[in-house]
Amino acid sequence: MTKIKAALLGFGTVGQGVYEAIKSHQEKLQERLVAEVEIVAVLIKEPYKKREIDPSVLITTNFEDILNIPDLDVVFEAIVGETPSFTYLSKAIEKGCHVITANKVMFAKYGKLLLEKGRKKNVYVGYEATTAGGVPIIRTISQQLQVNDIQRVQAVLNGTSNFILTEMREKGLSFQKALESAQLHGYAEADPANDIEGKDAFFKLMILSDLVFGAQPDWDAVEVEGIQHITVEDIQAAKTQHLRYKHIADIYRYGRTLKASVKPVLVAPDHALYSIEGVENAVTIYASLVDKITISGPGAGKFPTASAMIEDFVSGYQIPRYQFTLNI
Amino acid sequence: MTKIKAALLGFGTVGQGVYEAIKSHQEKLQERLVAEVEIVAVLIKEPYKKREIDPSVLITTNFEDILNIPDLDVVFEAIVGETPSFTYLSKAIEKGCHVITANKVMFAKYGKLLLEKGRKKNVYVGYEATTAGGVPIIRTISQQLQVNDIQRVQAVLNGTSNFILTEMREKGLSFQKALESAQLHGYAEADPANDIEGKDAFFKLMILSDLVFGAQPDWDAVEVEGIQHITVEDIQAAKTQHLRYKHIADIYRYGRTLKASVKPVLVAPDHALYSIEGVENAVTIYASLVDKITISGPGAGKFPTASAMIEDFVSGYQIPRYQFTLNI
Repeated sequence: MTKIKAALLGFGTVGQGVYEAIKSHQEKLQERLVAEVEIVAVLIKEPYKKREIDPSVLITTNFEDILNIPDLDVVFEAIVGETPSFTYLSKAIEKGCHVITANKVMFAKYGKLLLEKGRKKNVYVGYEATTAGGVPIIRTISQQLQVNDIQRVQAVLNGTSNFILTEMREKGLSFQKALESAQLHGYAEADPANDIEGKDAFFKLMILSDLVFGAQPDWDAVEVEGIQHITVEDIQAAKTQHLRYKHIADIYRYGRTLKASVKPVLVAPDHALYSIEGVENAVTIYASLVDKITISGPGAGKFPTASAMIEDFVSGYQIPRYQFTLNI
Repeated sequence: MTKIKAALLGFGTVGQGVYEAIKSHQEKLQERLVAEVEIVAVLIKEPYKKREIDPSVLITTNFEDILNIPDLDVVFEAIVGETPSFTYLSKAIEKGCHVITANKVMFAKYGKLLLEKGRKKNVYVGYEATTAGGVPIIRTISQQLQVNDIQRVQAVLNGTSNFILTEMREKGLSFQKALESAQLHGYAEADPANDIEGKDAFFKLMILSDLVFGAQPDWDAVEVEGIQHITVEDIQAAKTQHLRYKHIADIYRYGRTLKASVKPVLVAPDHALYSIEGVENAVTIYASLVDKITISGPGAGKFPTASAMIEDFVSGYQIPRYQFTLNI
């Protein structure tokens, strides 16, 4: 059977998820791809940490070692921050590898460029895992809604913020206590600023904007507001009126420009995102024929994110001409 | 530009939706398919009814006229009942046409057979529109969850029943009054038996069963119960406990068999289908890696169903080797 040689950049939670899921789902992968998928190398940062990796796998701190692997087919990238991710992926594409990324900060900035590079080298650039965790929103939009004219996207894209808001409403916790609860559950980083100030959701919205509208609004023109100023009193007052605060990323066409915002919004029970609770993510798509579709699921996590990356790769490998850049 | 010649079987609500949507979305279609899509013929039942169809289109009551069209590429089927739909589609496939159907009763029985015929003739058999209206559930499962092991599917698949239950809860209406309201809104047929007794949802569940598990349970072994025996008192009593009745189609692996039911279930607010209201449909998929994904949207209607048929065709035309029969 053909062997698909894969390298993994990063061995944090998501990297480990990809590694383990490729092993545990090997049978399904072989069925779909008529090929065996093997992780042949893992790029790590700290060489002396103990890791559960087969001895046959090359473990290296040097990306050049990855590039030197002959006939490498695909690179799964699960590292944090825009550099060196962009450089690594550019080099991998240049070498002729498919690349699958979970890096939203990098992709919001350099996605168009990477997709362009991928097209030139005829390789697949998959970025399903950058946005909404395990929810297959990128491919739902690019594959399942090709004819519909998408007019607007509204989404809950940051699980940490949504968890905090849910805790504050359900348990009457203060923002601070709810944040601590999120950290205790492992949902929030030690430095939660990107999540609670709306930046994380902003990057994901920009990725969706490129996909849906073929462009991003001026970043400075996007209203970005986090949840850190919402008090438990605000939330309880809303509750008595059967309203909920949801941190919503929203983008739509407005004349010849795009109007985008990422901010807390009061929503009523008939709003599609009203019932999205805890760490879930959800995306509502308003489109010309279908009217409105909402898709929800885990916004983060080891296996849901690994799911997004692996499913993305399988789609892209089967149909390499799909570059998921339909409007770009 | 290449011309894709399409025939439309049936010109009821859905047929008209397909006809109009292909016209109004011609630009997008051309962009995606690098071809023009033209409805060249419409099969109707009553020859003397007034219809808004271009004079250049062949209007006929005789299916043989459709079969005699040279180089016909695709047949969109939107007629009711299992016969003659199955015969028509079999003949269309035999002729080498792609077929796109919205006919759930027929497809629940003959889907496997039609897909087999399609594979032999190397044409696409699309059935997205048979299940959950505009919600692209068939392709979400077959394309976006290829590696995940799907363990269970739970769904609200009958918009009429869900609308009635919603009306009874929100407005305190009796079953009879709520049914009248559904008929008034055009959501329920004059003879609503198939909807309210659970048969409609049953057929859709059997289609999902084939797709997800590669088989259907014995029809006789499936517990099918409608909503007609639920009283407004039942619903109001549940409401005081923050519970809701949802008419849920459910299927999962149970040892070496499949366990399926279609019946009213009391669900709590943390259930994924609790917040599905009115005529919406929703499907929750429980799977090995992603955990749980829910997708919801309009369960019926002129343009949502047309959306499902047209998007389905575009997917199938682009990737004819996808037969959406991954487990069959």
